[in-house]
Amino acid sequence: MAPKLNSPVYPVVWCDDHVQLIDQTRLPGEHTVVEIRRSGDMATAIQTMIVRGAPAIGVAAAFGMYLGSREISTSDREAFLQQLEGIGKTLGATRPTAVNLFWAVSRMLKVAQGNPGSVGDIQAQLLQTAVAIASEDVQTCKAIGEHGLSILPQSPEKLCLLTHCNAGALATAGYGTALGVVRSAWTAGRLAQVYADETRPRLQGAKLTAWECVQEGIPVTVIADGMAAHCMQQGMIDLVVVGADRIAANGDAANKIGTYSVALCAQAHKIPFYVAAPLSTIDFDLTDGSKIPIEERHPSELYQLGDLNICPPGVEFYNPAFDVTPAALIAGIITEHGVFKPEDVQSQLQHLAHA
Amino acid sequence: MAPKLNSPVYPVVWCDDHVQLIDQTRLPGEHTVVEIRRSGDMATAIQTMIVRGAPAIGVAAAFGMYLGSREISTSDREAFLQQLEGIGKTLGATRPTAVNLFWAVSRMLKVAQGNPGSVGDIQAQLLQTAVAIASEDVQTCKAIGEHGLSILPQSPEKLCLLTHCNAGALATAGYGTALGVVRSAWTAGRLAQVYADETRPRLQGAKLTAWECVQEGIPVTVIADGMAAHCMQQGMIDLVVVGADRIAANGDAANKIGTYSVALCAQAHKIPFYVAAPLSTIDFDLTDGSKIPIEERHPSELYQLGDLNICPPGVEFYNPAFDVTPAALIAGIITEHGVFKPEDVQSQLQHLAHA
Repeated sequence: MAPKLNSPVYPVVWCDDHVQLIDQTRLPGEHTVVEIRRSGDMATAIQTMIVRGAPAIGVAAAFGMYLGSREISTSDREAFLQQLEGIGKTLGATRPTAVNLFWAVSRMLKVAQGNPGSVGDIQAQLLQTAVAIASEDVQTCKAIGEHGLSILPQSPEKLCLLTHCNAGALATAGYGTALGVVRSAWTAGRLAQVYADETRPRLQGAKLTAWECVQEGIPVTVIADGMAAHCMQQGMIDLVVVGADRIAANGDAANKIGTYSVALCAQAHKIPFYVAAPLSTIDFDLTDGSKIPIEERHPSELYQLGDLNICPPGVEFYNPAFDVTPAALIAGIITEHGVFKPEDVQSQLQHLAHA
Repeated sequence: MAPKLNSPVYPVVWCDDHVQLIDQTRLPGEHTVVEIRRSGDMATAIQTMIVRGAPAIGVAAAFGMYLGSREISTSDREAFLQQLEGIGKTLGATRPTAVNLFWAVSRMLKVAQGNPGSVGDIQAQLLQTAVAIASEDVQTCKAIGEHGLSILPQSPEKLCLLTHCNAGALATAGYGTALGVVRSAWTAGRLAQVYADETRPRLQGAKLTAWECVQEGIPVTVIADGMAAHCMQQGMIDLVVVGADRIAANGDAANKIGTYSVALCAQAHKIPFYVAAPLSTIDFDLTDGSKIPIEERHPSELYQLGDLNICPPGVEFYNPAFDVTPAALIAGIITEHGVFKPEDVQSQLQHLAHA
């Protein structure tokens, strides 16, 4: 697979009558596209991480809601809305941590409920809305990237940025959140190197972030997660930027497991640690991060590498998929509306969420 | 492979006329033994990590020196000693970070130089010395384990210990350093659970520490390296104990990459972080840890998992095998002579090293 340079990545695309998903479980070895025509298949795709990343899951769930609406056979508006709610519950049960999933399902339901027309009218508006959510998400990421330029340290001129997991184009409708900031820095000539934590257990950094960077010719160095602190100690890292799956009202941020460790190491080395995420990632209903549900996934993600079982029988496992970085460790949250101190998120952004 | 409970592990064993090494690159899938009869094969075994772990490398190198002494054909004492020095240089060049390697080679050379007898006499004493180094190492580890009991927090009664990499029986002549403390705690009824960082890239935690614990029925939970901070945040960890590959005179300690990250996370959670290592790991010639040479290994350790290449072409890699934890993060160094504050290592232990 030769790298195709400067080719933007869109992981969730609407094509005439179905959704095309880049199968992220097969990257970087195979670049395959899965066609999704039914909401049940979309739920499975989210659950099995064919599509992953908080904003991308939101976009996928929005299309899942539309696909589901096509499967409802009744023309009775109330019965239709009731069944649509059930579809929303199924999609919402796929993964517990990313709030964008619930945000997208809820937005689609509100659109349906607010449309006084026929079932056909509602279905048409649901498709429009899902397409709009996808397109807004790309714009949102580009705005995040632009605002991210303002937090780049003045020196050195060419910066080394560390990121964890994949908060890239693949994790959004396109362009990415944390990698949106990386892309903007690269375009602005401010980037020397991206350091990508490989991000065990699922290796989204080594597989997806590395793949995305190579696609666009951005220089990327993959390290094991345990090497980040050493790299910081050696003065190799100027800035850390990560994504988020859910941010509480006080600015505590849940992101891929291992992020909290990176944040602690960055603090010890006085390296600024930023979270890049759209407004839809902020859950103003949760006062703090301790209330964010943390998904536990199957231990095979830890013990199975390809066909190899690396651990002996008799071992126990613990496989939380996310952790929570306290607001105190976060220099700022880069959103499409600007960069905010975590403690200002509620006062500055909550009114926009309800707008 | 069914676990064989309560079976002690000895990775470097002298058998009549050759050394038997457990092939640690094949564990836990296969428990195979490699027979080593020549010093060149021992150098290769150390370099390719068939035998690994600072004290075990020292023991293996000592036997390598004896095997090498058998290969020297001259009966001229001076010529013999000169050739033995060359063998010491070859063995010393296999891995740069663990100081026990140089310590063992130097001890064997001194024994040879100090013996006024014939080449045959010297060879006999070299074998005796290598066997003594192996046997002392097991006793040293048991003493480390005993002293380790004194640093266990009083409560809770049953403790959860986190360790990184493998500083176990496999990393020594037997019993282990950090896992020596674990074994003592287990025998004393003070252990609830061992949490083993999998320790990327070579997965010595998931493969070797897990295997050793299972062999003796010690309950062990494997986590990805990035999960340690989250486990600490959740109150799951009472104490961290790790090994060391080289400790500088000021108490800075080099150990497997990722250790420094664990130490920073432990500090942030006020969890005591201890280093368990024999006196032979302390390099009194180095004033501080910045002078410890850090081995860089081949990037395939990062991108190759079994037969899988996980990264796309065009990616760069950085693969340091060790990092340095500053003395300020270390609550104490558990040695065979007792437990010492890192800042007291030089004043309390240097005279013993030269004894």
